[in-house]
Amino acid sequence: MAKTNPGRFFEDYQLGQTIEHAVPRTVSGGERALYHALYPARHALYSSDAFAQASGLPGSPIDDLAAFHVIFGKTVPDVSLNAVANLGYAEGRWHLPVYAGDTLRSTSEVIGLKQNSNGKTGVVYVRTRGLNQRDETVMDYVRWVMVRKRDIDAPAPETVVPTLSKSIAASDLVIPQGLTFADYNFTLAGEPHRLSDYTIGEQIDHVDGVTIEEAEHMIATRLWQNTAKVHFDATFRPDGQRLIYGGHVISMARALSFNGLANAQMIVGLNAGAHANPCFSGDTVKAWSEVLDIAETSAPGVGAIRLRLVATKGGAPFVLRGEDGKYDPNVLLDLDYWALMPL
Amino acid sequence: MAKTNPGRFFEDYQLGQTIEHAVPRTVSGGERALYHALYPARHALYSSDAFAQASGLPGSPIDDLAAFHVIFGKTVPDVSLNAVANLGYAEGRWHLPVYAGDTLRSTSEVIGLKQNSNGKTGVVYVRTRGLNQRDETVMDYVRWVMVRKRDIDAPAPETVVPTLSKSIAASDLVIPQGLTFADYNFTLAGEPHRLSDYTIGEQIDHVDGVTIEEAEHMIATRLWQNTAKVHFDATFRPDGQRLIYGGHVISMARALSFNGLANAQMIVGLNAGAHANPCFSGDTVKAWSEVLDIAETSAPGVGAIRLRLVATKGGAPFVLRGEDGKYDPNVLLDLDYWALMPL
Amino acid sequence: MAKTNPGRFFEDYQLGQTIEHAVPRTVSGGERALYHALYPARHALYSSDAFAQASGLPGSPIDDLAAFHVIFGKTVPDVSLNAVANLGYAEGRWHLPVYAGDTLRSTSEVIGLKQNSNGKTGVVYVRTRGLNQRDETVMDYVRWVMVRKRDIDAPAPETVVPTLSKSIAASDLVIPQGLTFADYNFTLAGEPHRLSDYTIGEQIDHVDGVTIEEAEHMIATRLWQNTAKVHFDATFRPDGQRLIYGGHVISMARALSFNGLANAQMIVGLNAGAHANPCFSGDTVKAWSEVLDIAETSAPGVGAIRLRLVATKGGAPFVLRGEDGKYDPNVLLDLDYWALMPL
Repeated sequence: MAKTNPGRFFEDYQLGQTIEHAVPRTVSGGERALYHALYPARHALYSSDAFAQASGLPGSPIDDLAAFHVIFGKTVPDVSLNAVANLGYAEGRWHLPVYAGDTLRSTSEVIGLKQNSNGKTGVVYVRTRGLNQRDETVMDYVRWVMVRKRDIDAPAPETVVPTLSKSIAASDLVIPQGLTFADYNFTLAGEPHRLSDYTIGEQIDHVDGVTIEEAEHMIATRLWQNTAKVHFDATFRPDGQRLIYGGHVISMARALSFNGLANAQMIVGLNAGAHANPCFSGDTVKAWSEVLDIAETSAPGVGAIRLRLVATKGGAPFVLRGEDGKYDPNVLLDLDYWALMPL
Repeated sequence: MAKTNPGRFFEDYQLGQTIEHAVPRTVSGGERALYHALYPARHALYSSDAFAQASGLPGSPIDDLAAFHVIFGKTVPDVSLNAVANLGYAEGRWHLPVYAGDTLRSTSEVIGLKQNSNGKTGVVYVRTRGLNQRDETVMDYVRWVMVRKRDIDAPAPETVVPTLSKSIAASDLVIPQGLTFADYNFTLAGEPHRLSDYTIGEQIDHVDGVTIEEAEHMIATRLWQNTAKVHFDATFRPDGQRLIYGGHVISMARALSFNGLANAQMIVGLNAGAHANPCFSGDTVKAWSEVLDIAETSAPGVGAIRLRLVATKGGAPFVLRGEDGKYDPNVLLDLDYWALMPL
Repeated sequence: MAKTNPGRFFEDYQLGQTIEHAVPRTVSGGERALYHALYPARHALYSSDAFAQASGLPGSPIDDLAAFHVIFGKTVPDVSLNAVANLGYAEGRWHLPVYAGDTLRSTSEVIGLKQNSNGKTGVVYVRTRGLNQRDETVMDYVRWVMVRKRDIDAPAPETVVPTLSKSIAASDLVIPQGLTFADYNFTLAGEPHRLSDYTIGEQIDHVDGVTIEEAEHMIATRLWQNTAKVHFDATFRPDGQRLIYGGHVISMARALSFNGLANAQMIVGLNAGAHANPCFSGDTVKAWSEVLDIAETSAPGVGAIRLRLVATKGGAPFVLRGEDGKYDPNVLLDLDYWALMPL
């Protein structure tokens, strides 16, 4: 009996199937420190227990994207080991902050299947749920990937494509219990801009750039226990390059967005996301944002801002697609998310 | 008086001498997170407090190899600063798991001395013991190294070569108090294979590979406070290469072995080990294992598996030695250890 | 309204102005582990809770230089974003050890202003104070930087150059409450040399060297939330090189100085410092020290040693300046500090 995991192929997924992913993970101050060492992350609520406590939380949580990476990483051996492409995200919501000492695990439900017309691959839609040690849902999101078939002659399953929201309604965002920005300290947070200072359609060039190193993206990706070969083994791709985990680019761009969005504190919704072009060591990642929507929430002083976050590896800011409608070759990431910001 | 440490030379060792090594070390969640960031480590018992507690432990320990590295690192300034070669390991046993908050220190007893026939070097055998803040032995092992003489004319000591076990008897392995695999969750652990699924002589190709970066092996080696020049200073060797700490290769190979040996949870015995060839930045490390023995233990549901773990930097799996009996040039490590696995 | 921080220009500073710097930071065992992973730090008091407790402290503090970097990093967006040069440090004192769980923030008072004769830049002197979550001063120091003017025609402010001590008097050093070296364990600390073994004028070559990698200095610099572009963005400088944060060189040199100064445990005073030449990836950093002064303190068994610490990237030790009085091109750092050492 072969002992190693060959990963699932398209015909191994069934609609409605639930996959319990392996290797639960307890996070600590170590993960938090590493997150700050790997990304230029400065959002005060994730940097300071005192700031988080003044915002009504028991302490500073692990960065929302770190929680996402841990939950996502567990799905890789079951969902994307034989994936040709990571096609999209939708309906991502953070339900609970994650604190040092919490143990995270993940499960995924297969909610859609569609064989491609070439007969060689298919698209698998999963709704992944991250759970803590009390079996509470920490976050959930839908992801769809294109997966190879093991046997080209395997019959195609019935096509089921789930209906997914283009964007989470502001009223469906989960606001962490007790959160308040009523006494928000803009000086300590780093910028004076409150929600009312932003307008829909406004674009922000985050100015700073970070040149990516192999050691750093591998350290990050391993930390989330995402062990897909393509990120680590320089002999795996014919070109000898290690493909950088898309989540590394997400975290880098989000951290860079501090400069102009220092008060977009907590990420609570992931509406959509595309890894437009691959990122490799040596690329210098920059970021720009566009305000897509603005909303109130039920928590004191807390508003919500919907942002497009674009990571690039060159070129001018605010360029997203060419005339052909395709992503500009310098665009790495196009992410659509909701964050919480003081009113 | 010269203030810097020149290291000990062969004639500085006396049989029966005990060396108390410097710089005790308190470990925390930081060391644990870094271990997971530096190696693709996924064994559930070291990743999740909840999983460790379900196995009868108070929480998730620091990886056994991390404990080994901390203990080993302290011996370097006293044992191997003037070493020409690290020749072997034997009789290594882990006595107690190490938890965040524990403080480790090391002592070594000289148990053998043998001057080489060239008169320029000699072999020193030490039994090293790692102790925690309660002076309990955490692990012990024998190591022998070839060390330069300071003065070629110094008289040779009486030759004493200790008798060392080829392998620790399964009955001599120390099983952590309270450990049970009676309710072991194979799904969360990542693989269904239990001890009875493995057969003596079985070989497993762990498939995955990691290309080594300078920054990573230096971060790792420093974390264990192993500060041997050769690992850090590119001007030290004539070829300008930094030799990678052998322990980095051990941990990398062990972590890669998750894929096929996810249930070989705790390392409890180190029977033998050879760093067959040097490893340098740019090498892509892969690993394969061979089952050498299988045994029962006194703990509920807990068996022991003796494994040969081979790290390579290329070539086909399962190639160990050439026709001349020498290690294949692609073999980096040949390690013989005992791990605990659910029956 | 532009949302990103353009940094302050020379004419934006007023004498007596107090700047409250953003993004407070809670440190944990993660920061401590990373410090040991990034630098070959082995001073026992920062490595072992047990050793620190035997010295009268509640536990092992975060390295004094890590505390300095955290406090310094917060000032970068307000003080040195448009700096042309970091000119000097003076009157730095550590007032309280920092422990895991402490939250640090920084404030700076403008204590001097002097426009340069070229009319394009000026020198700003600030006294920076690091505070913990109880608003206690953790450390303070004076720094002066040359900053660009935004508008060359802006009128020059009145010139005020503060009078700064060349060196802190030993009697003004703050000794941590409860500190004692009465039962100091020289074996565990790593070297037998006590204060009386050192003589003023003595020079020590620390022997070891570390070749610098891009990934490492970026990880370190980000950890202190110092996000100056020049350290991270390879497209920022015309030569495509990333300038290494001067504090990285300070920490590297201090850690290397363990070999010969293992008992110079706690840093309590920063008398002066110059970043003599820039450091880049690929440089091999070595260090040497010179004993500048020796003093007693009020704490049991605790003396103070004033040291010049010089980091180099090549050349022979003990070379500081050329015949023209300028720093030798191989000198990276010239630091003058006080440390506590057993009598």
